[in-house]
Amino acid sequence: MTAIRRAAIVAVGSELLTASRLDTNSLFITEQLNLLGIDVVFKGVIGDEPSELAVAVSAALARVDLLVCCGGLGPTDDDVTRDVVAQVLNRPLAEDEAITARISERFRSRGMQMPAINRRQAMVPAGACVLENPYGTAPGLWLEDAGRVVLLLPGPPRELKPMLVGFVETALKARAAGVPRVRRIVRITGRSESHTEEAVRPLYAEWARAAVPISATILASLGQIELHLSARAGSREAAEAAIDAAAGQVAALMGPDVYSRDGRPLEQVLGEMLAERGLHIAVAESCTGGLLTSRLTDVAGSSRYVEQAVVAYANAAKVALVGVPERLIDEHGAVSEPVAIAMAEGIRTRAEVDVGVGVTGIAGPGGGSADKPVGTVAIAAALGDITRSRVFRFLGEREQIKFQASQAALDMVRRMLM
Amino acid sequence: MTAIRRAAIVAVGSELLTASRLDTNSLFITEQLNLLGIDVVFKGVIGDEPSELAVAVSAALARVDLLVCCGGLGPTDDDVTRDVVAQVLNRPLAEDEAITARISERFRSRGMQMPAINRRQAMVPAGACVLENPYGTAPGLWLEDAGRVVLLLPGPPRELKPMLVGFVETALKARAAGVPRVRRIVRITGRSESHTEEAVRPLYAEWARAAVPISATILASLGQIELHLSARAGSREAAEAAIDAAAGQVAALMGPDVYSRDGRPLEQVLGEMLAERGLHIAVAESCTGGLLTSRLTDVAGSSRYVEQAVVAYANAAKVALVGVPERLIDEHGAVSEPVAIAMAEGIRTRAEVDVGVGVTGIAGPGGGSADKPVGTVAIAAALGDITRSRVFRFLGEREQIKFQASQAALDMVRRMLM
Repeated sequence: MTAIRRAAIVAVGSELLTASRLDTNSLFITEQLNLLGIDVVFKGVIGDEPSELAVAVSAALARVDLLVCCGGLGPTDDDVTRDVVAQVLNRPLAEDEAITARISERFRSRGMQMPAINRRQAMVPAGACVLENPYGTAPGLWLEDAGRVVLLLPGPPRELKPMLVGFVETALKARAAGVPRVRRIVRITGRSESHTEEAVRPLYAEWARAAVPISATILASLGQIELHLSARAGSREAAEAAIDAAAGQVAALMGPDVYSRDGRPLEQVLGEMLAERGLHIAVAESCTGGLLTSRLTDVAGSSRYVEQAVVAYANAAKVALVGVPERLIDEHGAVSEPVAIAMAEGIRTRAEVDVGVGVTGIAGPGGGSADKPVGTVAIAAALGDITRSRVFRFLGEREQIKFQASQAALDMVRRMLM
Repeated sequence: MTAIRRAAIVAVGSELLTASRLDTNSLFITEQLNLLGIDVVFKGVIGDEPSELAVAVSAALARVDLLVCCGGLGPTDDDVTRDVVAQVLNRPLAEDEAITARISERFRSRGMQMPAINRRQAMVPAGACVLENPYGTAPGLWLEDAGRVVLLLPGPPRELKPMLVGFVETALKARAAGVPRVRRIVRITGRSESHTEEAVRPLYAEWARAAVPISATILASLGQIELHLSARAGSREAAEAAIDAAAGQVAALMGPDVYSRDGRPLEQVLGEMLAERGLHIAVAESCTGGLLTSRLTDVAGSSRYVEQAVVAYANAAKVALVGVPERLIDEHGAVSEPVAIAMAEGIRTRAEVDVGVGVTGIAGPGGGSADKPVGTVAIAAALGDITRSRVFRFLGEREQIKFQASQAALDMVRRMLM
C-alpha cells in the first residue's frame, strides 16, 4: 500500500463555473488533509459534463495518491460524479439496497415518499465503501484503485464536513504518510494590517529559526485582522504546542487587541466571558437591525446570558421600547452618542440585566448627510456604573456596515469586561 | 482563426492551496468572459511547481480555445508561470528592453533602484504581445498558438482587473464567438430538490428544442431550492427575453412556491410586497435570535416597513415584551403553536403594525426532548383577522436551524400576502 502524501481536490458542479459561486469546500478539506501531513497539490472545478470530468479525474489520478471529489452525488441527471468515477475506474455500478432503505426512511420520517429518482443515490461502484450521510440523502463513497484512494463526498458543507472528519480519523489516518501541519488563526481588532505587521515582524526571524518553524501570514478581513500561523512537526501534538507558544507570544506582544488565539469568533469569546462571570446582556439596536443579537445567539448556550433584545429601528420605537427621551433625539439626532447611551442604559434598566448595549447609525445606502455620512454609527455599552460610548465611521456597503458595527459593539463590551 | 468559445482559468500560487485562501479572481474573469459569450469549462489552482503547472497548462490547452493563467508573474524564483508557458509552447524567452525600462522607471519614481531580479519580469516569450501594467511591475502577456489564445495576468486583483477589461474590450472581443450567455436564478420554497426536478422536467425537452435553448441546473440550498437557468443567443437582449420566458414558465408551473424569478432573496421579495402595499411588519423572535429581523433589515429602504422588533429569548421576556400569557407557556410549553400565535398577535398589537410574526423554537444543540427535538420551531403570522401558524422540524446545526426558521417565517408572510 502506498502511503498517501499528495492529494488533489476536484469540485463538481456547473454552478461553480459561474461568476457567482466559489468552491469553498476545498478549504475545509485542505485543513483536514494537512492535519495528516497530506499536501494538496492541485484543485480543480469542473461542470456537470461527464467527458470533462472524466478527463480531470484521469489526469488527477496520474499525479496524486488521493483524489477527493465533492459534489455531483445528488439524485438528478446533472449529478454525474458517481457514474464518471465508476467509468474511469472501470467499476460496474450496482444498487445498494441498504442505502435505498435509508433514503426512503429519511423521506418517510418527514412525511414524504421517496421520489423514484433518488434510487440513483444508492448506486455504488464495485468495491467501494459507503460513508453514511446523517444530514442528507447522498452517501459518500471511497475506493482504492492501484494504490490510490478516491473519495467522493456530497457538495453541501453540512453533509460533507462530518463525513470527511469521520473518514480522516479512521481509514485515511491509517494510510497517510506525512508530517502533520497545524494552522491557527489569531484574531485582532483595533489595529490595521500594517500596524499588525510592524508589531509581529520581530517574531518572524525567531520563528524561522525555531526547532518547529512557524510561518505566518497577515490577512485583513471585515472588522478584524487575522494572523494565520502554520507549523509542521513530527507529531500533531508537537506542532500544536509550537503554535500555541507562537500564538501566546503574539498575545503578549499585542495585549487586548488580540481577542482570540485560536480562531474563535468574537461573539463566542464575549459569550464565554459573560457566562464565566454570570453576567446577563441586553441589546437595543437600530442600524444593525438584529444582527448584533443574532451574532450573540449564534453561540450555543447563549440563553445563559441573553434574555432579550429590542430592535428599535424607528425613532418612536427608541422612545417606546427603551425610553430614550424624545428631547435627546430632537437635540442630537437619532444617530448620536447621547442616544446610544440612552439606549444602552435604557435596555439595561428595562431588561434588568448587568450589561446594556445601544447601537444607532446609518447603514445606507440612503440617510447620510455631510455631517453624518453613511457608515456613521454611535455605540454605547453600560456596565455597573460605567458607560462607554464612541462614534465610528465605517466604510462599505449596507451589510458590511452592519457587520462592522456589530463587531465594534461586541468588542466594546469585551474590552470593558477585561 | 478559431472563434473562442471555451475557456479555462488556472490560478498559480502555493498560497492558494492552503486552507485559508481562495482564488477569487476567477469570478471576475468568468463574468468578463461570459459577456463575450465565452464559457469557462474548467478552473484549476496550481502551486509554484513548474512540473505541475506544465501538466495543467498542456491539459487545458488540449481542451479549450482560451487559457487564462493568473499569478506567478512576479520577480522571484517562486514565480514560474512565464517560464512554464514559454516552455510548454516551445517559445524562447527574450528580454524586452522597453519593459525593463518601465519597471526601472517605476522604481526610480519611488526613489528606489530596480533590484536585479525584476529583470525576470521583462522576459517575453517569442511572439507574445505585452499588456502594460499601470498598477504594478508585472506586465501581462498574451499569445496565440495553433489557433488558441493564452493570456497571462498578474495575481493582485487591482492589477489584473483593468488589464483584463482592456484585453476583453479589444483583442478578445475580435476573437470571441460572440454569443452572449445570460444566467438567472429562480428561487423556490416548499419543495424538495427532487420534487422540483419532477415538476420542471417536462420543460427540459421543450427548452432544449427552443430557438434559444435554455439549460437548467437545480441546486438545493439552505431553506430553498435554486433553479439556475442559462441561455445564449445572438444578442444579449434575445438571451434575456428567452430566459424571462423560461422563468415565467417555471413560475406558472410551480405557482406560489416560486418566490423569485430573478435571484432576489426572500427578504427583498417580501420587503417589496410590504412596501408596495404600505404595510408595516413587527417581529417577536425567540430561537432565531434576531436573525429574522436582521434579514428584513438587510434590504436597503427597509425602514419603510420595519419599525421595531423584539428578541424574546427567555420565557419572562415573552411575557414582558409581547404579553404572552404565562398560562399558555405552562400549558403548551414555550415552543408551541399557541405561544407563537400569542407572540405574533402580541407584537402586532403592541407595535401597532399590520403584520405580526412570532417564532419560537429549539435551535440546539441543547434543549431538545423526545417530544420536541432540536430543530422544532413554531411560527405564526398575523395579518388582518387571519393568523396562520405551523410547527416545523428543521435539520442541521444551530445556525442552519436559525436560518431555515427565518426563511420559513419570511415565506409564511409572503404567502399570506399573495
